[in-house]
Amino acid sequence: MLKVFICGGSGYTGGELLRILSNHPGVIVTGATSERSAGKSVTDLFPHLYKYSNLVFEPLRTDEILIKADLFFMALPHGESQEAVDFLVNNGKKVIDLSADYRLRDAKTYEKWYKVPHKFQNTLKKAVYGLPEIYRHKIKKASLVANPGCYPTGAILGLLPALKNKIVSTSSIIIDSKSGASGAGRKADIAVSFCEVNEGFKAYAVGTHRHTPEIEQEFSFLSGKHITVNFTPHLLPVDRGILTTLYGPLIKKATSHDVVKMYKNAYKKEPFVRVLEYGTYPNIKNVRGTNFCDIGVTVNERTDTLIVVTAIDNLVKGASGQAVQNMNIMMGFDEKTALDTLAVFP
Amino acid sequence: MLKVFICGGSGYTGGELLRILSNHPGVIVTGATSERSAGKSVTDLFPHLYKYSNLVFEPLRTDEILIKADLFFMALPHGESQEAVDFLVNNGKKVIDLSADYRLRDAKTYEKWYKVPHKFQNTLKKAVYGLPEIYRHKIKKASLVANPGCYPTGAILGLLPALKNKIVSTSSIIIDSKSGASGAGRKADIAVSFCEVNEGFKAYAVGTHRHTPEIEQEFSFLSGKHITVNFTPHLLPVDRGILTTLYGPLIKKATSHDVVKMYKNAYKKEPFVRVLEYGTYPNIKNVRGTNFCDIGVTVNERTDTLIVVTAIDNLVKGASGQAVQNMNIMMGFDEKTALDTLAVFP
Amino acid sequence: MLKVFICGGSGYTGGELLRILSNHPGVIVTGATSERSAGKSVTDLFPHLYKYSNLVFEPLRTDEILIKADLFFMALPHGESQEAVDFLVNNGKKVIDLSADYRLRDAKTYEKWYKVPHKFQNTLKKAVYGLPEIYRHKIKKASLVANPGCYPTGAILGLLPALKNKIVSTSSIIIDSKSGASGAGRKADIAVSFCEVNEGFKAYAVGTHRHTPEIEQEFSFLSGKHITVNFTPHLLPVDRGILTTLYGPLIKKATSHDVVKMYKNAYKKEPFVRVLEYGTYPNIKNVRGTNFCDIGVTVNERTDTLIVVTAIDNLVKGASGQAVQNMNIMMGFDEKTALDTLAVFP
Amino acid sequence: MLKVFICGGSGYTGGELLRILSNHPGVIVTGATSERSAGKSVTDLFPHLYKYSNLVFEPLRTDEILIKADLFFMALPHGESQEAVDFLVNNGKKVIDLSADYRLRDAKTYEKWYKVPHKFQNTLKKAVYGLPEIYRHKIKKASLVANPGCYPTGAILGLLPALKNKIVSTSSIIIDSKSGASGAGRKADIAVSFCEVNEGFKAYAVGTHRHTPEIEQEFSFLSGKHITVNFTPHLLPVDRGILTTLYGPLIKKATSHDVVKMYKNAYKKEPFVRVLEYGTYPNIKNVRGTNFCDIGVTVNERTDTLIVVTAIDNLVKGASGQAVQNMNIMMGFDEKTALDTLAVFP
Repeated sequence: MLKVFICGGSGYTGGELLRILSNHPGVIVTGATSERSAGKSVTDLFPHLYKYSNLVFEPLRTDEILIKADLFFMALPHGESQEAVDFLVNNGKKVIDLSADYRLRDAKTYEKWYKVPHKFQNTLKKAVYGLPEIYRHKIKKASLVANPGCYPTGAILGLLPALKNKIVSTSSIIIDSKSGASGAGRKADIAVSFCEVNEGFKAYAVGTHRHTPEIEQEFSFLSGKHITVNFTPHLLPVDRGILTTLYGPLIKKATSHDVVKMYKNAYKKEPFVRVLEYGTYPNIKNVRGTNFCDIGVTVNERTDTLIVVTAIDNLVKGASGQAVQNMNIMMGFDEKTALDTLAVFP
Repeated sequence: MLKVFICGGSGYTGGELLRILSNHPGVIVTGATSERSAGKSVTDLFPHLYKYSNLVFEPLRTDEILIKADLFFMALPHGESQEAVDFLVNNGKKVIDLSADYRLRDAKTYEKWYKVPHKFQNTLKKAVYGLPEIYRHKIKKASLVANPGCYPTGAILGLLPALKNKIVSTSSIIIDSKSGASGAGRKADIAVSFCEVNEGFKAYAVGTHRHTPEIEQEFSFLSGKHITVNFTPHLLPVDRGILTTLYGPLIKKATSHDVVKMYKNAYKKEPFVRVLEYGTYPNIKNVRGTNFCDIGVTVNERTDTLIVVTAIDNLVKGASGQAVQNMNIMMGFDEKTALDTLAVFP
Repeated sequence: MLKVFICGGSGYTGGELLRILSNHPGVIVTGATSERSAGKSVTDLFPHLYKYSNLVFEPLRTDEILIKADLFFMALPHGESQEAVDFLVNNGKKVIDLSADYRLRDAKTYEKWYKVPHKFQNTLKKAVYGLPEIYRHKIKKASLVANPGCYPTGAILGLLPALKNKIVSTSSIIIDSKSGASGAGRKADIAVSFCEVNEGFKAYAVGTHRHTPEIEQEFSFLSGKHITVNFTPHLLPVDRGILTTLYGPLIKKATSHDVVKMYKNAYKKEPFVRVLEYGTYPNIKNVRGTNFCDIGVTVNERTDTLIVVTAIDNLVKGASGQAVQNMNIMMGFDEKTALDTLAVFP
Repeated sequence: MLKVFICGGSGYTGGELLRILSNHPGVIVTGATSERSAGKSVTDLFPHLYKYSNLVFEPLRTDEILIKADLFFMALPHGESQEAVDFLVNNGKKVIDLSADYRLRDAKTYEKWYKVPHKFQNTLKKAVYGLPEIYRHKIKKASLVANPGCYPTGAILGLLPALKNKIVSTSSIIIDSKSGASGAGRKADIAVSFCEVNEGFKAYAVGTHRHTPEIEQEFSFLSGKHITVNFTPHLLPVDRGILTTLYGPLIKKATSHDVVKMYKNAYKKEPFVRVLEYGTYPNIKNVRGTNFCDIGVTVNERTDTLIVVTAIDNLVKGASGQAVQNMNIMMGFDEKTALDTLAVFP
């Protein structure tokens, strides 16, 4: 049995890690930390996680937790993860970091967008960006995986085949994303209170969201060109799910049937990407609670534009599910272990 | 492998049967019927049920399906189930009927509330009411199980210990229930359209709902007295879940701690009933997608009234999950098989 | 023009007072206080209240505001209102207090339920309970009106005709209420965050809610007997609205038609109470944003129980709308002024 | 008093016309038609419209209704409106058509997108496109106003200043729109039932929505160039509201402050367009039930792209409110009459 430990277990991603890992036959969760809820049991915070009634949150003490596990999931806030990750990696542990701290390969870009310096650049060099659909082979051998952000996961999977096949212009890509409220985390904040979010819809952080450089890094990697993008996130009045609508001007003539075929081919071996049939588009409701990314793709022939719509569950493929997928790859489990479930609908 | 077949598979309870059975290692689904969707595949109607992409709905022909399975789930509308159930049972099949047709032991009561006569009273006599917490031993040996209604499940489990222990008056019981919209089924109807239900809340069928005699039958059985109840259903703007608040005047002095203890004791061996700690009450969100019935219980000492609050998922413990639980009991599987999952929260 | 001032204007009831008063041709709002938002304009907090872009919240200084208005609406938290109300009333101002501080005529009952003593019992004696359907004549002459709580408004209007006509037993009344999330106020609190409330439903404060003694006070007044009640509030995943389902054992034989007629007769002159036709029940969606209380009433002849369902908007008839109705009565305006609007549906 | 009549009064736009007109001191509604609900009263279908309890829906007989009013609102389905409009206009009546039948000036474009020929091209020539912010002077003198579609209203107002000032490229405009469920109308359809829409989000009619040519017609008119656009509608799980996010590559250097100023200047005299301050973006919740179009505008300087976000209530500024605004202009009322209300928030 693989012993795993969760640093930052009292938020929604922590809860999802616990839920998903409870289905994993090869893993045992040996502990979880929470500063604000230290001393409380998991079921005090998450009554639905009844299988963890004996697990009590503890404060994070990196030296004490070292012996408790072989692999650590880090679900700490951005900036707070850096040092703990460095310590664990340098002590020979496997680490999957769900924060943004090790996602950007360029420390200066990190500092520019996150407003704090990166103090552990040697460790940063070891980090592998944990999107299996691009980096599966590197993830297999990695000691540190930087789990992708929720928005980048939906955006990158949406354009990967188009960028690799160089069918879209790299200069005018539009990424219009809509996320459920759990993306904001579990927190006391009037802005995410029920009466403010319910029956509302708005854009936020227009042109300034921190997931922008992460998307640009991977788009540039896939295309071999330096790409800047327009990325606009919006807040949906639902618990879970991100729908992303992507627009890219075609630079090669292609029909809708061509691009559906191209996408199906690109993802034919991927266990968690489903390319929908021609004329069909995804709904976040169909991926709720699952690790799938559903993709609908078409060409607007009146404007020569590729339009792609992707749907993920922001807490699963956009966070904790992908983290478990990465763990499965790193540790030699079947990649689908604990993730092969059907959505609960409606 | 047990071969099972679903009659009436295109509604929400049919979809849930398919979802839950996909987790069952001892069962294979050999077919499913739908009149309005015959010829379509399961994934045309339920994109989330991707594991059933090869299963195509067929029209119901009782003579043809006989050889296809050993156990039949019947998710047909009330009145339409009677004859098919009779045919299957008389041909030696095991049947779990999710309709109301075999729930009321008295055919006249059935006719009074459902406005159609019961034509198969010999078969009706064989039917066992499928609430395992009362009838587990009978279910084990049954060929025909009448799966309880969603409201009755939440109501009966809420008062079972109090009625058995004769601590409440049987003459003034109030059952105030609130159900999510999936209880109305998957249908084209302005009354269940999004804009009518969303941001709304109302009572309906006040004093006249068809689940009333079913609740009264089991309350009377448990208490040994003839009981009539006030049962008021309400429509909640959520997908799933029934919360039921029950009020019964105490006829024996008891404290909240006494009744919590009594309830915990009554259900201590039940795998799907969770009695909450003193001062704690259930939320439908914590049982979403699961087979649990969560129960909070207290005594209002100012009025000498027992107050019980129960929460179930109307499509799982209130329908398809309980049906699978009954199948497990009938066929000798571990009772929790395919049902031992955690809720997806939030 | 009547000058009015709002103490505690930055919460949802404060916002509603401003919205409703903007329709009032005889009133001018001269100021509003907020401790946490002092210095901000109304439109910073409530972008929808664009007509108040020049109004800036100020901290509460009772001596300074005295000259600013003739009538004061107090929307302060319970306990914080006592002293300011006393000061304003003793300085000759008209006051409508939306807090609970002057609702309970017995200071000891207040202290028992609110855990603070009442320090201004002389002023308390002057307070009139502001439910116009009972106390209109007293409100006309009052200097201090204690605006009813949201739950009590729906509960009292639901049983007023039955209690006055003595058709229900006073010993076993059940009040099962369901309120939208705005009832909790505008605040930073995980428990009212979107992901916790949405798709959920629960009971809370079972048997212990502070509105209980207020309901009992008025039920006792109406019936001439000391009444204790079972009152259970629940949290609905909607912005606004309270639906209350009331159960009372009949002590006089009556049919549904009898009680519909009795209720229609009792409320025939009331501008804001609508008794629905036989067999029809209210929906909170139909009163959203309005000052109406819709009432459906029936007799369950199988159990000899009167069942009443009432719907109000908790922020309007349950708070700010009723406060303006009281102001209209006190100041000699037509009672419907500023309140005669249609709901926005859907 | 102006006598007005509503053809097609039983849908959501019909209900909104009735609600808004109830606030209009210069108008009397003399009748309303509905085929499916003929003989029923308005309050049977819309309990919230209590002021219309005496108005009974009648079947549409164009010859009979002619004498009943001076101005007709047509809220019939597309294709069904053509003939009735032609008849009324040719009989000297003022007509405001909320269907799409008279919006497209080119009959061939109409036939291509709506799949039916336009049989009344002489009348079509008289139609004025009813967006006051462009055509106010023509509307004043019009006998037939084609009320804009909901999506086009939000899209056109979003780019009007930019297109007029020629600051964006006309070849790569992206319009990503998200609409509440009332946009689909009041109908019995599984696809708009609560459980399908709630907690879901999806794109639909990608690149093929019928509002596309309407947007292109007006964009082309404003810019003086032939424009084709990418328009993608999405379905939001809310009752009301459309948020539209528009992207246009800048062809002149401009800062965010420049474009905010340009937009504020362009709309400074418009009573129903609010340009928000720099860095602020609209929320559909703030315009709910009102005739406002709120606009947030910025420049992404990293990509030289103008990004505009607009919010309207699809049933008000996107339909019935704009129709009343047009009526006010046509008939010489103050343009804001009956429309000068505050949103109900939350």
